[in-house]
Amino acid sequence: MSVTLAIDAMGGDHGVVVTVPAACDFLEKHADVKIALVGDPDLIKQVLSKSPKAPMERIQIIPASEVVLMDDPIEVALRRKKDSSMRVAIEQVKEGAADAVISSGNTGALMAISRYILKTLEGVDRPAIATAIPNELGRGTTMLDLGANADCEPMHLVQFAQMANVMVQVVDGKQNPSIGLLNIGEEVIKGNEVVKQTSELLRQTSLNFYGNVEGNDIFKGTTDIVVCDGFVGNVVLKASEGLAKMMSGMIREEFNRSLMTKIMAVCAMVPLLRVRKRVDHRRYNGAVLLGLRGCVIKSHGSADSYAFGFALDRAYEAAKNRMVERIAAAFVVETKV
Amino acid sequence: MSVTLAIDAMGGDHGVVVTVPAACDFLEKHADVKIALVGDPDLIKQVLSKSPKAPMERIQIIPASEVVLMDDPIEVALRRKKDSSMRVAIEQVKEGAADAVISSGNTGALMAISRYILKTLEGVDRPAIATAIPNELGRGTTMLDLGANADCEPMHLVQFAQMANVMVQVVDGKQNPSIGLLNIGEEVIKGNEVVKQTSELLRQTSLNFYGNVEGNDIFKGTTDIVVCDGFVGNVVLKASEGLAKMMSGMIREEFNRSLMTKIMAVCAMVPLLRVRKRVDHRRYNGAVLLGLRGCVIKSHGSADSYAFGFALDRAYEAAKNRMVERIAAAFVVETKV
Repeated sequence: MSVTLAIDAMGGDHGVVVTVPAACDFLEKHADVKIALVGDPDLIKQVLSKSPKAPMERIQIIPASEVVLMDDPIEVALRRKKDSSMRVAIEQVKEGAADAVISSGNTGALMAISRYILKTLEGVDRPAIATAIPNELGRGTTMLDLGANADCEPMHLVQFAQMANVMVQVVDGKQNPSIGLLNIGEEVIKGNEVVKQTSELLRQTSLNFYGNVEGNDIFKGTTDIVVCDGFVGNVVLKASEGLAKMMSGMIREEFNRSLMTKIMAVCAMVPLLRVRKRVDHRRYNGAVLLGLRGCVIKSHGSADSYAFGFALDRAYEAAKNRMVERIAAAFVVETKV
Repeated sequence: MSVTLAIDAMGGDHGVVVTVPAACDFLEKHADVKIALVGDPDLIKQVLSKSPKAPMERIQIIPASEVVLMDDPIEVALRRKKDSSMRVAIEQVKEGAADAVISSGNTGALMAISRYILKTLEGVDRPAIATAIPNELGRGTTMLDLGANADCEPMHLVQFAQMANVMVQVVDGKQNPSIGLLNIGEEVIKGNEVVKQTSELLRQTSLNFYGNVEGNDIFKGTTDIVVCDGFVGNVVLKASEGLAKMMSGMIREEFNRSLMTKIMAVCAMVPLLRVRKRVDHRRYNGAVLLGLRGCVIKSHGSADSYAFGFALDRAYEAAKNRMVERIAAAFVVETKV
């Protein structure tokens, strides 16, 4: 079976200079992949011309005259830019012309247009955004929701767990993944009302529910999946990015302080680069929009070609292993029980 | 004016071997301080005997026969252990014998016993826990609540902002500190209902309200104060601790990999130690329990003497600058407006 990926070629901070080369690299690695590049044909061809070895027979260029900007309000992206590269790429999935869509564009717009075009799966009340976060075990902890749903009911969190359960099996090949519910620990009150009720509901499912986990468990890798509402998930994700940036900034600053420390930096280069590689968020690029009738992958807006390749990997694995169909099936079973 | 600090000498993972030497060091630095060491007199005297220069005329030993354990349920700490070092130390503040109390014990128990013994200030619905978190600017971002209140109403968050506003002026000497409301950004929905309403209320106060901030702003130092509910605050704090631990663990691991990398580690020691010092959480030890009729400082359970000294610093600054009275006054003004 061949897999067709639709790429919003114009999305993200860098657009075609990132998406097109990443697409060519990916095609080279995967003989069973076809790619539809959606956007300004001239710009796309210009970059393609720099990759003379690109397998043109597996590349299709689909024109789209507009671009959703990173700071476009959702309404503008959804109602006014009907010929945006993002929307046209999503439509490829809707029409069955592509198996998955990948965009580095505005998350809010991507979710809104995907919901509008693709619709949610039966039994899913709220789509959610899931991503893997590097942990001490060298694997990723899959966390969701990361911002699609600020206010959640217990039933929504249970559905997030059900969807992530399928996603991790499909994308990471991990059978029966363990699921933790993000909560607070030893402090005065253990959890808010929503979390307490969610915990009871999760115990009644057939999921491999570990129980409550705390903030530090995300990085310990205590469970394969960590479930929380989109407010908490978004804040934790951004705080973690901020802390990692602060720490690496300080390391850079201290090694740049004098000629002596610069020499030290050269000496320490190998281990420091290894650390950087281990926590390199680019290797975890590619958040999955779960709960839609189609496979939608969100790449980080600032992704470079290397990072964008990982988002393509996720899309490929999800499409090839029929993630959406399997989530749909899980919901049919779950709702009938 | 002299300041008397009551120390729960038995609290935390290490008890007297940390609290007593830290107290002696602190007395040496501050001639205007007296310290009441609360706990097992024999154990306290044993450690004191190792500090022959300790100014015994400024040290009082107050016996307490029980200890609140780190995993004691709140009910046990509150109802059964009526002669715990934690409780007796808090009572010193209630009776006016001490100006502040410092404990490394169980946070939940400390908050519960403090509320029971000291009561909350007039106009304050919910006490909160605040601490400073290292930021890129080399100062601390004061964040609250960190776990005392998992479910918050908008009015509670406004009160947290009012209390932190006084705390930062008093403890950090920063006039008119800026206040950010922790929220989510560009994603689908901007904030949950509580945050939206809180934002409107904060705009109506005389506080220096900056507006919404995101997770990464905590470490950027965008505002002096970041307000959130105790669920979010606790999760972010613990996730940050977990990430910092993971990163420093990886650095250690990579430099320990071979003889060659160990030599590199020696070369890189100076800048790496400087980084460690800059983000050393021990320098930010000492969370403040705000909203009580008395000054209560929570030290980290695993604090060593160096870290415990910083908690004593916070207690000293808060007591000397009459933090509690100033919070009380702010609430009288605010509630009259």
